Amino acid sequence: MSQAENGTEAGTRFLSEIREQPAALRRLLEHDGEIARIATILRERDLRLVRIVGHGSSDNAASYGVYAFGLLPRWTAMRDSITLTVHYGTPLDMGGSTVIGLSQSGRTPDVVEYVRGARAAGAFTIAVTNDPGSELADAADATIPLATEPELAVAATKTYVNTLAVLALLAGHVAGRGPELAAGIREAGELLEDALPGLERTTAALALPFAYTGRMFVIGRGVEFATAREIALKLLETCRIAAEPLTATDLAHGPVAALDPLFPVWAIASGDPTLAPVQEAAARAREMGATLVASGVAADRIEGAAYRVPVPAPTPALLSPLLSVVPGQLFAWALARARGLDPDAPHGLAKVTLAR
Amino acid sequence: MSQAENGTEAGTRFLSEIREQPAALRRLLEHDGEIARIATILRERDLRLVRIVGHGSSDNAASYGVYAFGLLPRWTAMRDSITLTVHYGTPLDMGGSTVIGLSQSGRTPDVVEYVRGARAAGAFTIAVTNDPGSELADAADATIPLATEPELAVAATKTYVNTLAVLALLAGHVAGRGPELAAGIREAGELLEDALPGLERTTAALALPFAYTGRMFVIGRGVEFATAREIALKLLETCRIAAEPLTATDLAHGPVAALDPLFPVWAIASGDPTLAPVQEAAARAREMGATLVASGVAADRIEGAAYRVPVPAPTPALLSPLLSVVPGQLFAWALARARGLDPDAPHGLAKVTLAR
Repeated sequence: MSQAENGTEAGTRFLSEIREQPAALRRLLEHDGEIARIATILRERDLRLVRIVGHGSSDNAASYGVYAFGLLPRWTAMRDSITLTVHYGTPLDMGGSTVIGLSQSGRTPDVVEYVRGARAAGAFTIAVTNDPGSELADAADATIPLATEPELAVAATKTYVNTLAVLALLAGHVAGRGPELAAGIREAGELLEDALPGLERTTAALALPFAYTGRMFVIGRGVEFATAREIALKLLETCRIAAEPLTATDLAHGPVAALDPLFPVWAIASGDPTLAPVQEAAARAREMGATLVASGVAADRIEGAAYRVPVPAPTPALLSPLLSVVPGQLFAWALARARGLDPDAPHGLAKVTLAR
Repeated sequence: MSQAENGTEAGTRFLSEIREQPAALRRLLEHDGEIARIATILRERDLRLVRIVGHGSSDNAASYGVYAFGLLPRWTAMRDSITLTVHYGTPLDMGGSTVIGLSQSGRTPDVVEYVRGARAAGAFTIAVTNDPGSELADAADATIPLATEPELAVAATKTYVNTLAVLALLAGHVAGRGPELAAGIREAGELLEDALPGLERTTAALALPFAYTGRMFVIGRGVEFATAREIALKLLETCRIAAEPLTATDLAHGPVAALDPLFPVWAIASGDPTLAPVQEAAARAREMGATLVASGVAADRIEGAAYRVPVPAPTPALLSPLLSVVPGQLFAWALARARGLDPDAPHGLAKVTLAR
């Protein structure tokens, strides 16, 4: 068994942090009042164009934010271009905009710079970070702490799930549905706590069949597109699989042609109106001979899946991504270890990414 | 030499259509007056939130639209969520929005449905399609023809480049810079015409070294992120390479860990302020042992590239993507043939994708 450089067994931190996610969600709920107060500002000022920025797992969470704000207060949210203002220096009028900068460390240089510029351009800016003393928090009008306690494994887990929860709770309060969302997040944490032992067993059994997999597509749509992106990123960074996230529909617009029996597809099946396109895409993948893994709350409704990792369904349904990413995290952990890789400290990565 | 089902040599259509791109750009410019008239409507009504939708190559072009509208009239443009309104049925207020639906065939079901809904929700809607008699054109307030003449190869080429040109020209007219953009597009077509024979030779020589490549990252940033996405899609659909597009910065946020000498990276080097992050990302990829291909107007400025495919630089610089995608198209053609695949008709794909 390999030993990580820090003297602990490889992957110990990553696995611990996956297991800490229910507790991290509970800790976040202690900040419900602060989040509600920030939501009041957004409502009162009617800041209904929401610009979300981040890189890596934070950008994946931003994909979820598009749906949290779209489905709850019915505001338009977008993953904004950082390049446009930071690298090209384009002056945009951001009056009427909410800006949400996502960075676990609070030190991602171009996110900090984007937020600073957006504030000067008239946006109301919110930092979502695990370090409320960070540069990002300094740059923003308001800060929401991720409250996960330190995350030490290089690959993000609990900070990703808490970022989703922050976005859902903030959007919920803007929509006047804060208490419902807070209760839903509490329930999601409890469901996850109960499900974790079973999920660990199920995903451990998946490591061997995929030990030699070099390529994979991860498909999802709607609220679960963020999950597809995040699972693909975990597989890339911890298992060195060329895993690409695609919406169910985009799979059909070209990439499906690359599939064969050695190119498996992981499908995230939601319990909402996006299930049908995911089922259709999964069927096309199977026609191409691809091995299918199905996860998500409706994993049982993906026909022909060779492996299934269902998760329990929280209420409201838009909170499902808080649970549905976990099978991917655990699979990444088990597969990395099967391949002799250390998911705590992947080759070539540092915890805080200062690349511009 | 393999024969395609249509009786012509494999890849003949795809290659012809790549070569037709300069002529297609000239034909598009015959519609400059119509595009200017539509731009006048957007300006007069101040429809400064631009929502762009499409799948596959059209969605890649939408990534370019974000920059065309951001850099020229300094409007905020976004790749909007189709799922939010079409699948979840969320009623959004789209007053004050321009909607641009991109579909070569004009028949992509959820794009048509999105545009219909957006029009009912108060947006001014524009269809950009190669079939001005299509459902999409019917659904929209205004239509801009792609004017490429029929595209027969399954993998898009000339319709992609003309979609970029439509977005640049429309954004240019909105900014009061229509004549400058029209002249730039004319120049881009001429530069491409002159460069094509050399690009065909250079990319043909690349096919052999990459004959067994199974995975690749394609990186770009800013206006060239669209190029990275489109080149990756060509490689996926015609060569069955698991090619994933990443912004230069996102490469550092995890995926870099997957790289090794059998996992090459294609970098699109722009001649604008995004060159520095692309250079930095390319250097990190090289540290991981990845073979580097550099293309784009500043291909010569990527250190350590094993292969370079520079393209000439049009004016203004934001038109570079009209040229910089072409090395990727030609490489896909050459590599598909080296692998015995038919880029005119990839396995599992039809020209018109009706997946939802």
